Amino acid sequence: MINTIFEHRTIRKFKQTPIENSILDSILNAAIRASNTGNMQVYSIIVTKNPEIKNKLWEQHFKQEMVKQAPIILTFCADFNRFNKWCESRNAIPGYDNFLSFFTGSVDAVIAAQNATLEAESNGLGVCYLGTTNYNAEKIIEILNLPKGVVPVTTLVLGYPDEKPDLTPRLPQNAVVHYETYTDFSKQSINEIYFETENSEFTKQLIVENKTENLAQIFTQKRYTKNNNIYFSKSLLDVLKQQNFMNNEA
Amino acid sequence: MINTIFEHRTIRKFKQTPIENSILDSILNAAIRASNTGNMQVYSIIVTKNPEIKNKLWEQHFKQEMVKQAPIILTFCADFNRFNKWCESRNAIPGYDNFLSFFTGSVDAVIAAQNATLEAESNGLGVCYLGTTNYNAEKIIEILNLPKGVVPVTTLVLGYPDEKPDLTPRLPQNAVVHYETYTDFSKQSINEIYFETENSEFTKQLIVENKTENLAQIFTQKRYTKNNNIYFSKSLLDVLKQQNFMNNEA
Repeated sequence: MINTIFEHRTIRKFKQTPIENSILDSILNAAIRASNTGNMQVYSIIVTKNPEIKNKLWEQHFKQEMVKQAPIILTFCADFNRFNKWCESRNAIPGYDNFLSFFTGSVDAVIAAQNATLEAESNGLGVCYLGTTNYNAEKIIEILNLPKGVVPVTTLVLGYPDEKPDLTPRLPQNAVVHYETYTDFSKQSINEIYFETENSEFTKQLIVENKTENLAQIFTQKRYTKNNNIYFSKSLLDVLKQQNFMNNEA
Repeated sequence: MINTIFEHRTIRKFKQTPIENSILDSILNAAIRASNTGNMQVYSIIVTKNPEIKNKLWEQHFKQEMVKQAPIILTFCADFNRFNKWCESRNAIPGYDNFLSFFTGSVDAVIAAQNATLEAESNGLGVCYLGTTNYNAEKIIEILNLPKGVVPVTTLVLGYPDEKPDLTPRLPQNAVVHYETYTDFSKQSINEIYFETENSEFTKQLIVENKTENLAQIFTQKRYTKNNNIYFSKSLLDVLKQQNFMNNEA
């Protein structure tokens, strides 16, 4: 049993203590040991410590304070640039400018990111994943100078925790796990699965603060709205085109 | 330091020994503790043990023998179906039928899969990721009866190892890691980074077996060809449309 997995909390407040180079090295090596497609290693990791560059990333990550606070930002990218350059210099014609290749690199990048997360946590660090990476990918590409064939997929902010939040609740296992084939949800099973979440004091307070009828409306009306999702879907697809990952015709 | 991370080898030969329920439970709980977007938990895990269903999955995973051998198959899916049903029954209008939502669910699913991998390995099990999940997603959807809003993203086969392969080599850290911003590769840096890989005995043997000029051509001509990538890119994008994840217009 890996205790670090069961002790994970997302950390959003960091001390100013710098991260030792030996620990960063161990985190990067952990990422690199991860499973990846065909051992092509079609991902890359951008390590950002420079306050000016961090500041620019902070702006793209919705100005979340932790991005400035954390001593290190790791941006994990789907990356066929290096592989393409290798192929081209070996008289081999790469065919990796398509959606499948982007998705392959993305899966590799996320597996590597989770290894990095656990290795960081086992060294006493805290991390937060930044979903905003997918919202403002175009700007992040500019800031980090990512060439065609490279798209940022997820970001980790890393630092020594300056808080110890409770473990966040999860839905019961049967909300997420299906045996043999998928068992779809009835209105009753939905009620059962969400009962505890919806009836917690924390949720009740959130609903008051957000002035909605219920928790679900906080998600649909405030946090993850249809308009934003459509806007960011279009911009992410544009980024894939721009970075040369949408040539899906022979 | 998490030793399990540094000891990872992909396992492709499994003993017939069944996996204890308590261990499976621990693996599933490890997956569920993973970071996920907004604690929406927009992923699901399908556990397959039934030999008939496993047989059908085996066909879609290019008939790789390990899929039949392994006692348990875990299919990790991006899943907004449960979340959408919850919203709809709470007078909240979900806007999660778009590409960003699919990608959000995919990142969540892969983080969960890597937690499951490490927890399995720490219990003495071996795993193999199946990239074929993205190639034949449409058929896997049929077999596992996945409703709209659900797309398989990656698969793990799990079992007690019947082999102990060497650690696979990786490119040097500077092939994958960039500091502050991306440093693009010159022909010389490509030569340096790939020197060890290209000059190993293993590679030399592969080139003879594959009758190519070099290692890069094994990837472009045999393993991950342009034609296949285009074919599977189209079919994956069709699956996203079919599963209601490509409504990207207001």
